[in-house]
Amino acid sequence: MEATQSPHPYVPRDLKLPGYVPVLLPQLTILGVYGIASVLVVTFIWFISGRSPKRSTVDRVLMCWWAFTGLTHMILEGYFVFSPEFYKDKSAFYLSEVWKEYSKGDSRYVGRDSAILAVEGLTAVLEGPASLLAVYAIAKGKSYSYILQFAISLGQLYGTAVYFITALLEGDNFAASPLYYYAYYVVLNSFWIVIPTAISVRCWKKMCAAFNSQGQKKVKSR
Amino acid sequence: MEATQSPHPYVPRDLKLPGYVPVLLPQLTILGVYGIASVLVVTFIWFISGRSPKRSTVDRVLMCWWAFTGLTHMILEGYFVFSPEFYKDKSAFYLSEVWKEYSKGDSRYVGRDSAILAVEGLTAVLEGPASLLAVYAIAKGKSYSYILQFAISLGQLYGTAVYFITALLEGDNFAASPLYYYAYYVVLNSFWIVIPTAISVRCWKKMCAAFNSQGQKKVKSR
Repeated sequence: MEATQSPHPYVPRDLKLPGYVPVLLPQLTILGVYGIASVLVVTFIWFISGRSPKRSTVDRVLMCWWAFTGLTHMILEGYFVFSPEFYKDKSAFYLSEVWKEYSKGDSRYVGRDSAILAVEGLTAVLEGPASLLAVYAIAKGKSYSYILQFAISLGQLYGTAVYFITALLEGDNFAASPLYYYAYYVVLNSFWIVIPTAISVRCWKKMCAAFNSQGQKKVKSR
Repeated sequence: MEATQSPHPYVPRDLKLPGYVPVLLPQLTILGVYGIASVLVVTFIWFISGRSPKRSTVDRVLMCWWAFTGLTHMILEGYFVFSPEFYKDKSAFYLSEVWKEYSKGDSRYVGRDSAILAVEGLTAVLEGPASLLAVYAIAKGKSYSYILQFAISLGQLYGTAVYFITALLEGDNFAASPLYYYAYYVVLNSFWIVIPTAISVRCWKKMCAAFNSQGQKKVKSR
């Protein structure tokens, strides 16, 4: 082991992270800030979206989801993508602490694995802004609302698939303990499987219905 | 260098491929068989699809594309995904030869890079059969035809993006020569950027039009 190398809590233990600064904020603070900020965003969108009495509950819930996931993609994942040296941060900057902490569930983040970076780059740069556009599209009842939501959801599902498949192919040994493995790697990511799947299925049905309706209209107008 | 290690033509030169058997078929044969088989598939679908006089030329071209890309995904890429030792093949089996040859443009194939495997696995197992379903959906004028084509095209684009981004992040040094780099890695893959982009844009417009039409119908029926 080199003299300059700091010890770190990540697995595999032989991962080289010269200049690593340990997590400075308590775990509860890191998770709590994300949780509270998310609740505030969702509450804000829920009340704003309720101003229009015509808007359905499902659309309001979707607007909350797209705002939450869009901001997560842009702020949290965006910071990760463009901060290759976050693990050397000494200032207890919140976003660095998030990724130092999350890397206990998947050290490929702190190790800057190229598949992780590719997926996170696409997620932060394309899917993040597109998610906020989805909030606007639902709010305004745009004709592209369903296809946009479908496109982002498929992107999230593809990214999550690449994320899990590459880990499995490389031995699935990137978590500091079973607790971190299940809590961070499995449970947190499962939201981005379950919700995009549900949205994709809903959008698929809505778009088929629109084509069926268009087809009937054509038949009638003959 | 170990005594058991055979020399190979791939870059990086220190890639370990114990038991490697050189490409046995001529380059012209490998490319020619793929080219001729593709032309036969496209010609067959073109004539079959022409039996219905109502079918548009665009739909016929799309049916040819989905048959070609679906069979490429399932046969060529499917073989790669499930044949980890293709580079040891001594029988000049065509599909092994294809991947030995293509690896001159991108050695991550013969090196079994996990990002490549994840993308190719999703492509072969999901997008391949879905592409053949798209041929059927267009032929039968199914209401899910556009959304299915859109979904597969986005998957192809996401996969190609991960493919190129991971190569760039790892130094973009996987080709045996500039000729292989441009001919195999850049030119061949560019078809799976240009065509899925064009199809996605078309499907997006068609689906927006269906929603606009549905919206107008609702307004009229009030």
